[in-house]
Amino acid sequence: MTEQPGHRIWVFPSGCIPATGTGTEPEFTSREELCLLNPGPQDVTAEIEVLRDDEDPSGPFTLAVGARRVRHVRINDLFDPVPVPLGVPYGLIVRTEHPVVAQVVRTDTRRDGLTVSAMQGYGTG
Amino acid sequence: MTEQPGHRIWVFPSGCIPATGTGTEPEFTSREELCLLNPGPQDVTAEIEVLRDDEDPSGPFTLAVGARRVRHVRINDLFDPVPVPLGVPYGLIVRTEHPVVAQVVRTDTRRDGLTVSAMQGYGTG
Amino acid sequence: MTEQPGHRIWVFPSGCIPATGTGTEPEFTSREELCLLNPGPQDVTAEIEVLRDDEDPSGPFTLAVGARRVRHVRINDLFDPVPVPLGVPYGLIVRTEHPVVAQVVRTDTRRDGLTVSAMQGYGTG
Amino acid sequence: MTEQPGHRIWVFPSGCIPATGTGTEPEFTSREELCLLNPGPQDVTAEIEVLRDDEDPSGPFTLAVGARRVRHVRINDLFDPVPVPLGVPYGLIVRTEHPVVAQVVRTDTRRDGLTVSAMQGYGTG
Repeated sequence: MTEQPGHRIWVFPSGCIPATGTGTEPEFTSREELCLLNPGPQDVTAEIEVLRDDEDPSGPFTLAVGARRVRHVRINDLFDPVPVPLGVPYGLIVRTEHPVVAQVVRTDTRRDGLTVSAMQGYGTG
Repeated sequence: MTEQPGHRIWVFPSGCIPATGTGTEPEFTSREELCLLNPGPQDVTAEIEVLRDDEDPSGPFTLAVGARRVRHVRINDLFDPVPVPLGVPYGLIVRTEHPVVAQVVRTDTRRDGLTVSAMQGYGTG
Repeated sequence: MTEQPGHRIWVFPSGCIPATGTGTEPEFTSREELCLLNPGPQDVTAEIEVLRDDEDPSGPFTLAVGARRVRHVRINDLFDPVPVPLGVPYGLIVRTEHPVVAQVVRTDTRRDGLTVSAMQGYGTG
Repeated sequence: MTEQPGHRIWVFPSGCIPATGTGTEPEFTSREELCLLNPGPQDVTAEIEVLRDDEDPSGPFTLAVGARRVRHVRINDLFDPVPVPLGVPYGLIVRTEHPVVAQVVRTDTRRDGLTVSAMQGYGTG
């Protein structure tokens, strides 16, 4: 079996969930989504730590991704019942037992229109 | 001959084609485009798999890119007659026999104005 | 102890702080923020140089990031009392004694609506 | 002397200069800008090739970047008198004799508001 593409550790430094939004929910709810792609033949369970600027990290939270599947999860759905507060800086460290590919996408509708930003992570391992 | 820059595998985890749009078509049609650059002296044929969150992958679909050419293709044009549904999570794995450079660009006109996001891929091989 | 994820040098070539803004401050002030994540068990002090297109670099400026913390800083707050002028090209070189992960996020409210862009850095070392 | 951070080859696959714009020029002219940072003690001259989807590459065009300087250039300024046509797909291959860091930033004012996207390049060498 050849090594599957991806990394076992992904780090995202720039998280900040917009605190307000406009437009119909849930389509236009301001949010950040963690997007994982598992290219391999095994299911994986991601362990996710949330780092903050003024307190110790929380987690690890776990998230299952099936073999050869993607999973896109709103950060706030993931970390229930200890959600990431809105409008504050945070970061993520995502660890998996097999390589995956991860990205964070921010949707922000605080003002008119819409801005979507892809937050590329740093992968290693 | 020196090795040409790029990778033989590119992975994109965060696909989601906006389901609606505003403004004149085709210029402002909401879309995601796969952008390939083939820096080498040989034509390449990319094999593209589409991963989903709730069913098995589809493909591989094939896409030719001439020697020392770019090719930008709307995901929906590429995967006809089995198009990626709009508004659902998906990911791409792009494989080529020689190194290329790939990126996905999302154009979203669901609301007033416009937001364009470059979805950087993960490259290996 | 295993090596912590990240790099000791991060380079950002595309800085340019939008010179004007609209909407309530400070939430919608146009800005660029440097986002650092320190995954390790030691506090780090980042040394930051600002490169310009028409004069010698300034700095290094220093910025502390606690162990297992993130820190998001507006470029203009960081470089007081020698702030980066608004509306001019600049770049950053960020050096730390232990690996960290860095990203720059630009918020631009010069016009109606809002555009947020993640400026991925180049990491090495 | 330690190796300076960066790469000698940067590849950008997803170029497309928005063909129209709104708002006051030059601030809000739709454009793509190539942003180079030269971290080293030597001036560099970048050689830039433009790849297209339907014809042979053009160039190399040359662009000087001073030692320890950034340079941000509108693609259309750079390639005068053979400018990249507006609204068509293109890509860039940027080569330098010493390592630099490169990024492309797209500003699009075709519609109300504004969208800015950072197009991360692929670096090697």
